[in-house]
Amino acid sequence: MSEFRHDPVQKRWVIVAIERARRPMDFKKENNVSPKPTVCPFCDGNEDKTPPEIIALRPSGGAKDSPGWDIRVIPNKFPALAVEGDLGRRGLGIFDMMNGIGAHEVIIETPDHDAHMGDLPDEHLFEICKIYRDRISDLYKDSRLRYALIFKNHGETAGASLAHPHTQLIATPITPRTISAELDSAREHFLAKERCLFCDIMNQELAMQDRIVHADERFVVLEPYASRFPFETWILPRVHSHDYTLSPDNIIRGFAEVLGDTLRRLKVALNDPPFNFVLHTAPNVTVRPGKENYWKTLPYDWHWHLEIIPRLTKVAGFEWGTGFYINPTPPEVAAEYLRSIEE
Amino acid sequence: MSEFRHDPVQKRWVIVAIERARRPMDFKKENNVSPKPTVCPFCDGNEDKTPPEIIALRPSGGAKDSPGWDIRVIPNKFPALAVEGDLGRRGLGIFDMMNGIGAHEVIIETPDHDAHMGDLPDEHLFEICKIYRDRISDLYKDSRLRYALIFKNHGETAGASLAHPHTQLIATPITPRTISAELDSAREHFLAKERCLFCDIMNQELAMQDRIVHADERFVVLEPYASRFPFETWILPRVHSHDYTLSPDNIIRGFAEVLGDTLRRLKVALNDPPFNFVLHTAPNVTVRPGKENYWKTLPYDWHWHLEIIPRLTKVAGFEWGTGFYINPTPPEVAAEYLRSIEE
Repeated sequence: MSEFRHDPVQKRWVIVAIERARRPMDFKKENNVSPKPTVCPFCDGNEDKTPPEIIALRPSGGAKDSPGWDIRVIPNKFPALAVEGDLGRRGLGIFDMMNGIGAHEVIIETPDHDAHMGDLPDEHLFEICKIYRDRISDLYKDSRLRYALIFKNHGETAGASLAHPHTQLIATPITPRTISAELDSAREHFLAKERCLFCDIMNQELAMQDRIVHADERFVVLEPYASRFPFETWILPRVHSHDYTLSPDNIIRGFAEVLGDTLRRLKVALNDPPFNFVLHTAPNVTVRPGKENYWKTLPYDWHWHLEIIPRLTKVAGFEWGTGFYINPTPPEVAAEYLRSIEE
Repeated sequence: MSEFRHDPVQKRWVIVAIERARRPMDFKKENNVSPKPTVCPFCDGNEDKTPPEIIALRPSGGAKDSPGWDIRVIPNKFPALAVEGDLGRRGLGIFDMMNGIGAHEVIIETPDHDAHMGDLPDEHLFEICKIYRDRISDLYKDSRLRYALIFKNHGETAGASLAHPHTQLIATPITPRTISAELDSAREHFLAKERCLFCDIMNQELAMQDRIVHADERFVVLEPYASRFPFETWILPRVHSHDYTLSPDNIIRGFAEVLGDTLRRLKVALNDPPFNFVLHTAPNVTVRPGKENYWKTLPYDWHWHLEIIPRLTKVAGFEWGTGFYINPTPPEVAAEYLRSIEE
């Protein structure tokens, strides 16, 4: 089992793999690339190469773990966190730790090994986005889990170890630091102004227009003012909502359409760049005994959204050492270029 | 000139290049690698290929910008920040910005293009480490500059654009977020316990021993308990000190020796891995009018140190999206391996 360890300096939790750890000698190899699997475990017909599926979309029916699915959700074969067991919160002198409890799932987006997510039909993307909603909702029944993170690594540079299109879901007993910081900012803004921080940003951007990539009646796609990376892109629902899992089907459908459109624009504009995306949604509000009042009111001033980061530049010492970033491409320039892409 | 832009969600400053920005089309190239310069501007004899030097070490004498130096400090030819001008702090609706004021220097560590910093003689490393001290002290005379960041990118994966051994220095009008967070943690710990957080960590690690790489009378080298990355390594002075620039020569000499020893261990252990290092030292305490009392007392509970990050794993969507990390190699395993390297 892995461990959560707390860094008392940066006040950050780190997951340290204890079993199946990479040994020092593994890093010494000149070419540190794992051999390509000759058989893709995510392809149709190879269902026995993965752990038993959690759910799958089989429009024509068919047995569990059999071929013929459109979308398939499985536990990660090499999970960073394990579902079974107690958190075992404890101290080690000045340090804090707990067991590596959580869930780590893979959403195989299509049986087509060579597909690009952006090229999937809108109807298919709608089904994927509904599955995101359903998996988060299901995991939030477990009160040990504070946050469910939906993310995608596309391309080797972006950390994808398998090329077959897939999204990952990691649910953790901690609200991640990045999300906590955003919750705090949104809360502070709301207490001062009784308005949502993200709604305010969206309204200002819509008025200024120069960082808007796309806007329709349900969603806004923009390059954030202080983009860390070239072509960093956010997708926000226009109607205020703190929790992705509360989105009705028509909102999920609108999200799927705009996600597909945005991924296609980035693919055309930047020649199929490696990218990551991460869904920022509300933490699991059922938890934190004794803090119900705080948590019950908290998520309403938050605004769910998706952040997409194309991986075009190398992150160097300056960024790791400071937590701030040098972005060589102004978001206005990126937005103008993305707007110019023919749909 | 570049701009500092403030992200109101993450409360983070980003440097956005406005002129000489990378155009979208630059990212479209299949192989996004700049052509290797046929002439290295950092080599002896090519002094006319760089901006005029700031200082240089010339044991046998010689004119400014002439060959025959041991160490040479120059302004970066393509600086992220410019020294001349006003900060021009201003708002743009909900956003905050200021001009890209700061300094960006390069410390060419040796005329030998193919040298590895870890293989330089101790006496030479001592001179480099004294130059770090002198350059920070000099820049801190400028009260606009809040922090001077000494960092090194070694290897292309770590962001080095030129192979010739060099360190960079970026001085900014902001205390970087990573440093602020550490200053806050150290302050909070001191207010609660009247002890230094870093001294406490060091003492516990020395008692436990399993994450110690090296310890002598002046310095401790350790793998931090919640290491984000395999072989993340910290070097801390044993005697409490908040400010690298206040270190007397005997401490700088001890630091240079232990830095060389640590870089050699990592080079041998991991086959010359790409790495970054970043010096964490006190901010410029002369600034912040009206907040003198806070800043005058603040740095004394802080403890300067150097953080080294070998770049062995890819940082994927999970890390960018959450701010926490999965480390596949426990620091105890890394420390044991580094201890086993023959000096």
